[in-house]
Amino acid sequence: MDNQIWCFKENNEVHAAAAFTVRNILQAIIGNIDETRTGKPMIHLGHGDPSVYPCFRTSTIVEDALVESVRSTKFNCYAPGVGIDPARRTVAEHLSKDLPYKLTTDDIFLTVGANHAIEILLKVFGQPGANILFPTPNYPLYEAQSSLSPLEVRHFNLLPEKGWEVDLDGVKALADDKTVAIVLINPGNPCGNVFTFEHMQKIAETARQLGIMVIADEVYAYQAFGEKPFIPMGVFGHIAPVLTLGTLSKRWIIAGSIKSCLELTADPPTVIQAAVPHILENTPESFFLNINKILKEASDLFYERLKDIPFVTCPHKPEGSMFAMVKINISAFDDVVDDTDFCMKLAKEESIILLPA
Amino acid sequence: MDNQIWCFKENNEVHAAAAFTVRNILQAIIGNIDETRTGKPMIHLGHGDPSVYPCFRTSTIVEDALVESVRSTKFNCYAPGVGIDPARRTVAEHLSKDLPYKLTTDDIFLTVGANHAIEILLKVFGQPGANILFPTPNYPLYEAQSSLSPLEVRHFNLLPEKGWEVDLDGVKALADDKTVAIVLINPGNPCGNVFTFEHMQKIAETARQLGIMVIADEVYAYQAFGEKPFIPMGVFGHIAPVLTLGTLSKRWIIAGSIKSCLELTADPPTVIQAAVPHILENTPESFFLNINKILKEASDLFYERLKDIPFVTCPHKPEGSMFAMVKINISAFDDVVDDTDFCMKLAKEESIILLPA
Repeated sequence: MDNQIWCFKENNEVHAAAAFTVRNILQAIIGNIDETRTGKPMIHLGHGDPSVYPCFRTSTIVEDALVESVRSTKFNCYAPGVGIDPARRTVAEHLSKDLPYKLTTDDIFLTVGANHAIEILLKVFGQPGANILFPTPNYPLYEAQSSLSPLEVRHFNLLPEKGWEVDLDGVKALADDKTVAIVLINPGNPCGNVFTFEHMQKIAETARQLGIMVIADEVYAYQAFGEKPFIPMGVFGHIAPVLTLGTLSKRWIIAGSIKSCLELTADPPTVIQAAVPHILENTPESFFLNINKILKEASDLFYERLKDIPFVTCPHKPEGSMFAMVKINISAFDDVVDDTDFCMKLAKEESIILLPA
Repeated sequence: MDNQIWCFKENNEVHAAAAFTVRNILQAIIGNIDETRTGKPMIHLGHGDPSVYPCFRTSTIVEDALVESVRSTKFNCYAPGVGIDPARRTVAEHLSKDLPYKLTTDDIFLTVGANHAIEILLKVFGQPGANILFPTPNYPLYEAQSSLSPLEVRHFNLLPEKGWEVDLDGVKALADDKTVAIVLINPGNPCGNVFTFEHMQKIAETARQLGIMVIADEVYAYQAFGEKPFIPMGVFGHIAPVLTLGTLSKRWIIAGSIKSCLELTADPPTVIQAAVPHILENTPESFFLNINKILKEASDLFYERLKDIPFVTCPHKPEGSMFAMVKINISAFDDVVDDTDFCMKLAKEESIILLPA
């Protein structure tokens, strides 16, 4: 098809933003691999998609709930922008179990995965002049989406020597009266850490002092397999306003806020929304225990074996999520410029995929 | 929860845009109804969601395909931003049947419904200084989404006296060298018309002359039940670049383009994408014939009975989609200001829901 006309009028900002997504970075790295030349099969350690491994198969409860929803023929309709009430209500009840107050249906908004929730939030907060605080390291989609938003992004550090805790002094130095929110990912992506109760309380108190909202990305909620239990940021909702992002895709191994924006954007398929109550109410605790057991075994093996590899260290043993952050001593290599270059060359020479941070 | 802080920092543009969505307008009109007072049950003629009526139940082929996809356990993974290959390939083959050339997998992009495709397109074309041509009347989401975009919107008329054909002279007068595209909805939403082959060829030639792309919203593709057959705009792809929006939700009664943007935004659930080949290949023609038969019966009844109602006329008998456009002689009413006011009062007095255009 004749598409020259279209090509030169498209929006280059979108291309630039997409270049920073995990999918595109991985594609570039994987493109470097030539298995036929090296004879080494690809070892893919660069993604957080558990469903590709048989040991992480989803619960049959999820499959049954989806099948029942489809067979009922009751959910081929459009849903309200915010999601259907039974699903929202069950999510509210589910999340309230570990909170000192009760969430209601109106506190819950359903999106097409947490990436969609991030898109919505940045749109809602995206006013010229406003700024938002992101952690470094961060989940790349925040950076990619915000580059399309009028929001100014300011970065605070996570401190590897303190188990990737937030540099709260740095946060206070960055924030001003145009700051709308601070983003936190716990369990950590990509650092694999879990925050303590005491640290989270300090974060909430800092947010209150600064007059900003806490956006708590809890996509890996309860996937904590170290010493520290997972604590939802909502526990500190009496100190500062908390907006929590969650997803079914990680914990249940299948791949919610803001009404007006949701009227304008894509909705989660109603058949899937309808399956949510059954999924949340019936998945047994043993399912999650088993997932965390597998994650812990893999993480422990990774941590121990890494000690034998020179020039690569893990500053903090992974405690949660599906990620671990390692430090590479770039100066020990003659021909490596930076982390991206290291990942590109590792892929080319050893067919091992890591994601640069 | 304490959310004052958040409230005064949110983006009011999003609220303003959402006010123009069909869902929000309908909500305002339905809010006017008090069935207990009037004793009149609500007659809802204001939406295009066929699935709420039992006669429009989806095909069991669709249900079977979804169930099989869920049961296979192969599609709980993340999908590529553009969609999975088997689904894209089958959509390409399906659409190619009525085109003078063959579409390939790479010509197809999967979105979470056509609303999502509209959002993506406006983002892709959304550069400051650029403008886009929308029809009047239009599907409201185009207007709502574009109010959040830097794109300037220019409106051309659809001509009721010419069966809602495009005012091509008006289009030529509106376009300039900053115009990126013209949007057309065929079969028409909300006008219920179907374009002829000759008229579509003229539109394509006009687009070529102006150096702009045609965005062909074909959400109601093949739902043509009058004299004129539905012709996909892609037939004229050799004249001007055509970007077609389609959906499974209308024709199959279950509720794209642009790779970089799709990397950044929500993806259709992989289990649903995986069911697409089976759905497209196996739904029998009789299913669609029956849907069009029901639509034609309802439309004919509507058109005939409307003749008995004073001050309301239908300038063009509906031929396609799920909509009909009527003209109200507002001056014949003492206390009606405009179309929205008429719909509000009709809802209040008669419990009948119409959507103002």
